[in-house]
Amino acid sequence: MAVDLTPSPDVAELARRTAEFVREVVIPVEEANDGVARSEEIRAALQSGAKDAGVFAPHVGTEYGGHGLDMRGRAAVFEEAGYSLLGPLALNIAAPDEGNMHMLEAIATGEQKERYLRPLATGDIRSCFAMTEPAPGAGSDPGALTTRATRVPGGWRIDGRKWFITGADGAGFAICMARTSGEPGETGGATMFLVDADNPGMTSVRHIDTLDESLYGGHIELVFDNCVVPDEAVLGEVDEGFRYAQVRLGPARMTHCMRWLGIARRAQDIAVARAAERELFGSRLGELGMVQQLIADSEIDIAACRGLILQACWELDQGRSASQSTSIAKTFCAEAIWRVVDRAVQICGSLGISGDLLLGRFLREVRPFRIYDGPSETHRWAIARRVLRRHDAKAAR
Amino acid sequence: MAVDLTPSPDVAELARRTAEFVREVVIPVEEANDGVARSEEIRAALQSGAKDAGVFAPHVGTEYGGHGLDMRGRAAVFEEAGYSLLGPLALNIAAPDEGNMHMLEAIATGEQKERYLRPLATGDIRSCFAMTEPAPGAGSDPGALTTRATRVPGGWRIDGRKWFITGADGAGFAICMARTSGEPGETGGATMFLVDADNPGMTSVRHIDTLDESLYGGHIELVFDNCVVPDEAVLGEVDEGFRYAQVRLGPARMTHCMRWLGIARRAQDIAVARAAERELFGSRLGELGMVQQLIADSEIDIAACRGLILQACWELDQGRSASQSTSIAKTFCAEAIWRVVDRAVQICGSLGISGDLLLGRFLREVRPFRIYDGPSETHRWAIARRVLRRHDAKAAR
Amino acid sequence: MAVDLTPSPDVAELARRTAEFVREVVIPVEEANDGVARSEEIRAALQSGAKDAGVFAPHVGTEYGGHGLDMRGRAAVFEEAGYSLLGPLALNIAAPDEGNMHMLEAIATGEQKERYLRPLATGDIRSCFAMTEPAPGAGSDPGALTTRATRVPGGWRIDGRKWFITGADGAGFAICMARTSGEPGETGGATMFLVDADNPGMTSVRHIDTLDESLYGGHIELVFDNCVVPDEAVLGEVDEGFRYAQVRLGPARMTHCMRWLGIARRAQDIAVARAAERELFGSRLGELGMVQQLIADSEIDIAACRGLILQACWELDQGRSASQSTSIAKTFCAEAIWRVVDRAVQICGSLGISGDLLLGRFLREVRPFRIYDGPSETHRWAIARRVLRRHDAKAAR
Amino acid sequence: MAVDLTPSPDVAELARRTAEFVREVVIPVEEANDGVARSEEIRAALQSGAKDAGVFAPHVGTEYGGHGLDMRGRAAVFEEAGYSLLGPLALNIAAPDEGNMHMLEAIATGEQKERYLRPLATGDIRSCFAMTEPAPGAGSDPGALTTRATRVPGGWRIDGRKWFITGADGAGFAICMARTSGEPGETGGATMFLVDADNPGMTSVRHIDTLDESLYGGHIELVFDNCVVPDEAVLGEVDEGFRYAQVRLGPARMTHCMRWLGIARRAQDIAVARAAERELFGSRLGELGMVQQLIADSEIDIAACRGLILQACWELDQGRSASQSTSIAKTFCAEAIWRVVDRAVQICGSLGISGDLLLGRFLREVRPFRIYDGPSETHRWAIARRVLRRHDAKAAR
Repeated sequence: MAVDLTPSPDVAELARRTAEFVREVVIPVEEANDGVARSEEIRAALQSGAKDAGVFAPHVGTEYGGHGLDMRGRAAVFEEAGYSLLGPLALNIAAPDEGNMHMLEAIATGEQKERYLRPLATGDIRSCFAMTEPAPGAGSDPGALTTRATRVPGGWRIDGRKWFITGADGAGFAICMARTSGEPGETGGATMFLVDADNPGMTSVRHIDTLDESLYGGHIELVFDNCVVPDEAVLGEVDEGFRYAQVRLGPARMTHCMRWLGIARRAQDIAVARAAERELFGSRLGELGMVQQLIADSEIDIAACRGLILQACWELDQGRSASQSTSIAKTFCAEAIWRVVDRAVQICGSLGISGDLLLGRFLREVRPFRIYDGPSETHRWAIARRVLRRHDAKAAR
Repeated sequence: MAVDLTPSPDVAELARRTAEFVREVVIPVEEANDGVARSEEIRAALQSGAKDAGVFAPHVGTEYGGHGLDMRGRAAVFEEAGYSLLGPLALNIAAPDEGNMHMLEAIATGEQKERYLRPLATGDIRSCFAMTEPAPGAGSDPGALTTRATRVPGGWRIDGRKWFITGADGAGFAICMARTSGEPGETGGATMFLVDADNPGMTSVRHIDTLDESLYGGHIELVFDNCVVPDEAVLGEVDEGFRYAQVRLGPARMTHCMRWLGIARRAQDIAVARAAERELFGSRLGELGMVQQLIADSEIDIAACRGLILQACWELDQGRSASQSTSIAKTFCAEAIWRVVDRAVQICGSLGISGDLLLGRFLREVRPFRIYDGPSETHRWAIARRVLRRHDAKAAR
Repeated sequence: MAVDLTPSPDVAELARRTAEFVREVVIPVEEANDGVARSEEIRAALQSGAKDAGVFAPHVGTEYGGHGLDMRGRAAVFEEAGYSLLGPLALNIAAPDEGNMHMLEAIATGEQKERYLRPLATGDIRSCFAMTEPAPGAGSDPGALTTRATRVPGGWRIDGRKWFITGADGAGFAICMARTSGEPGETGGATMFLVDADNPGMTSVRHIDTLDESLYGGHIELVFDNCVVPDEAVLGEVDEGFRYAQVRLGPARMTHCMRWLGIARRAQDIAVARAAERELFGSRLGELGMVQQLIADSEIDIAACRGLILQACWELDQGRSASQSTSIAKTFCAEAIWRVVDRAVQICGSLGISGDLLLGRFLREVRPFRIYDGPSETHRWAIARRVLRRHDAKAAR
Repeated sequence: MAVDLTPSPDVAELARRTAEFVREVVIPVEEANDGVARSEEIRAALQSGAKDAGVFAPHVGTEYGGHGLDMRGRAAVFEEAGYSLLGPLALNIAAPDEGNMHMLEAIATGEQKERYLRPLATGDIRSCFAMTEPAPGAGSDPGALTTRATRVPGGWRIDGRKWFITGADGAGFAICMARTSGEPGETGGATMFLVDADNPGMTSVRHIDTLDESLYGGHIELVFDNCVVPDEAVLGEVDEGFRYAQVRLGPARMTHCMRWLGIARRAQDIAVARAAERELFGSRLGELGMVQQLIADSEIDIAACRGLILQACWELDQGRSASQSTSIAKTFCAEAIWRVVDRAVQICGSLGISGDLLLGRFLREVRPFRIYDGPSETHRWAIARRVLRRHDAKAAR
């Protein structure tokens, strides 16, 4: 038994079919809509197409209609889905639904699964994950959490403000992180709550206008004001919210990387096509050394992303926390994917910044990934601290 | 007599007043409009404000109501104007009008100056510069020019297609570059023509949707089809168009750098303010080493841009072609300004990619500068070739 | 069956023992000798130690006293050996012997194996690979080969000049690449010859003084002048030398990466130890954000190297040419390893450039790796060309 | 009066003669000695040559036999001297003598000037500046100074340890920084002392082996043990040592930049010559795009260095502290010069890392400049802090 990088035949086949579906069904819709699905009709049509193609919900257990892929399997399939901005929506593996399903499957009670996971898995409803708060609340530092949940008879009352809550517009429910004990700045004491969209205590205050626009359901500012939920709304155990967030976080980081790696590959393919076809100064663009350097650097970046994602996914599949390897992969991928798209824009020149190609759109969509799911700086800090602790532990022996 | 970096008192005072005008008058308008002037009313109001503040048209000769600044003077004043996306429009020094005025002042006949330069200098009309063509025409390689002007009795007939013609929507006239002799691929044989907007042979085909949106009058695709102009429409001498383009190009490159350097400084100021005020992990954001590195690197980039711009401007003011120093400055500035804005986004985190700040807008606006006025790759190629020729000349001695 | 990154227990155990041997036996010798083995005594002592520790010659088949590791197994073990500059010499896996053994095992006749491979595998003799020539001969472009072998009765006569022939001083034999047909600039027509050290036609002209010094046996300039060898000296088939060079090249590139990755890890460990222990401005060096960034970036680089090496090794073990993945891995690793060592120097400050640590030595040793085994630029050119060919093939369908 | 970049005719002429002297006299000596002057004979011959050429001691006042150049003048001349590793030694403007002369001229008493400055200015003696201490003493943080000077009748007794004291071997005297009040960690309380080489209380403990080797007189570890000096040994005022260090520091940083910029230009010229002459894949190396990119990037770096040096020098000549602009210039130059030399190595390939060219030597010599005179990280920290203080001051208004 040695290291083996051959994907299982099932995964390979599902990835192949996903690639085909994206190419034939999704990309035409994407190109016709500037990369943004702006209506429920588009979402429904894409998801219906994915079901027909047998590629829908690859990550969810078969009992919920999915393919039950582990993280390594997702790495192969999500990258293919991510080849179009609308691929993940079509397969029902877009953020934040995908991460929420992952967490619900791991933590929710049977009843919660029936009520929330099942319709989510089929695409009948969508969801959001309400964690981030405006400064000085929970942002790069989750421990700064200020939203409070206080005990009321038969349940809890949630009060606080959340923002950049992706997908909240139109979501059937929110998973809200609130402090049930301790004070902002302390690392424990958070609890996750399932809040139905029709709860009068949860209000969408505004769409936050952002550089990126393709994540379905927008980035929303939510206010929880006297938002009362029953005991059954607690997801997992009280005061264990930060631990569950970690359960969600590592895999969610990786699936972001997988999807955006798909866009990086797409950008590279667009640029390579341009380099192959455009003539300049008497030769093909792709025969000019500086263009070759851009192409090669992107090829290297893409390969390195894939290696780092695989390493982290394999650790996650072993049941390890993989906090170091997911931090490493997330930091590198977010920056490498950005570089790849930026190089593609440069290769395509004025066309690259025009709407005639989708590269400008891609550039806008991938930039925030260097910030969400932990800014690169926060991850670097965490990576270095783990290295130093490893050293200290060794030195203490 | 030694090297002296003290700006003249007049220039220093004009720069100071420009900075004040931008801060007090322009930025409020910019922030209320997401950085984009979308109506003639806004343009008129801004330009009227600049006239009241005595900062209008600093680059044009006093006989046309301007301040007659040389390139070094422009470096100081344009940077201050560029501190807001709308500052250059307000001062009437936005591209492409500013470069067109520069060229008309240098080349046009007295009559042409009265008819085109005077109303342009006052802001009564706008203009565009129709050079770039879709592949395989004039782009990174101007010599590939395919638009033709053929002799007709009493004038010329122009036929061809141009795109990415900035400011063409609403412009009073276009300066159109067309081939009057030779074949595409040859470096001579171009002529510049002044074409009035109401010439039925010149048609705007479409607005090209681009990543950037703040340059007034859009990026337009123009078709010249049986576009007849009289002999008086020739700007300068027949067949000398490429030489004049060089007259325009060097200075126009530099004024782009100056204006965008203003935006870089603005982005840095926004980020520094955020770093000074935001608390994270128990300290000011600006006390964290990685944030300090971002701030310092941007400070270095800004200082280096200024030094390179100054060098090139000084050469231009000596009447030198300054082709090497403007290539160097353009390449470095376009990339450095981009880095500065990108770092500012990163420092501000999720706020940085939201519409609550203008940084995402700045990022979109400065990206194309690495492509227009010569892509970085083309400039690097030209820089290296000049270095090699310099070596060959030395070696031959 | 899915992707599996668990190393086999045998490999894991050999890697563990190698690490222990390097730490306990090799590093003391390395530190006492400034990283350079300057005598046969040192080499003999180290190799004898490796034999005692049961870690000698891990790459060679068991019939020659080795462990028969495939490329994936080498990746794990060579990295541990490379943790010291003298580890590879100790294990008998240093360049160029290691690559020569690999090739002899694959190509040589039984008789040649007994005569050359067996004593090489035991460390009784050393060898060199005489391919590179001074300009305008075979360098970045192997096809420029000018050394000639001409038919003489019963054998061949070799004439030409080679340089940068690593390990030639004291080698028992050379594998010399010479042109048996065709002209310089043509890609075929090369043959490999086994030339004994005592052949009077092969002379060492000089030691080339280089930035790096740790590769045993130096970088030598060799002259072949009327060097007559018998027919049995031909390695493999006549005129097939370039094809065999490819057999050697891919794996040799990867084993270079593995060994130097070990040094990168070592440099990182030295820097982390320093960052953990040194106090500055009232805190541990490792608590300063910019130092954390350096540490994290190196951690990321090391992880990415490992992923890329593994991918290429797996392909090689499948019997694939792996030319793209070895080019990608080589280019990235050579540059990343350099960055890691450079960052370690920076973290350690003045100590980092002093002989009190070995980091300055490491910096000198790894720099040439961005040049030998194909300069980064040549690999990028090859990578981009393969991408473009892939596109062309697809587009032609 | 406007910004003017024309050097004064005197400076231009001295720079021209310096360039000529370096080319004709210094470089042959440098190339014959691997860039390192290893004997007093070499030093004497070079300095005698510089006197004959009328280019000796350009920075010292005419009353001491120099040319009395201000900082802007030095920028032009020192860069030419720095074009060879031995140029600064020849002109008597090498570190640390040059900085010491600068400080003595500014601070010393008339008597001290006669005794120390005059023979230093003529090259009859050399000197060193004993400030840096092993951890946890004065290094990146000068305030950590631990060497003590205590009052004794008629003078002071100095005790402490210094290291990396450049030029100490053979120096006629040392300027030693010692704490006369306060505790390590406090920013005041240091005094500078002139200590004669024959003082029995000052002992050279060892030559520190370093990556760089060309600075004459080595990097020495010095022990001050019961080192008694008279009151006249105090340079300037007691307890004002840190302030004087600043007087020395800003200009010394800049002269380092100037000299090393000369080496960067030299490296670029060597690489360009190679690129112009070497044929590869059927064209000149310099016609390959990736090589052109390396050349262009170095050209840009060199130009940017020059602009930043000039800005800082101009500020210094105005009598300003220029702490921000010298930090900016030092940080950028140290890194840019390193990049330029590294690119030159890469362009020259295997020749670049061989002793046949001096590029490997240059690489070794310039690496430490990113560490001494303040590591890049310390400067970045200082730069950012000044920016934040500027913001705070504005915000407080």
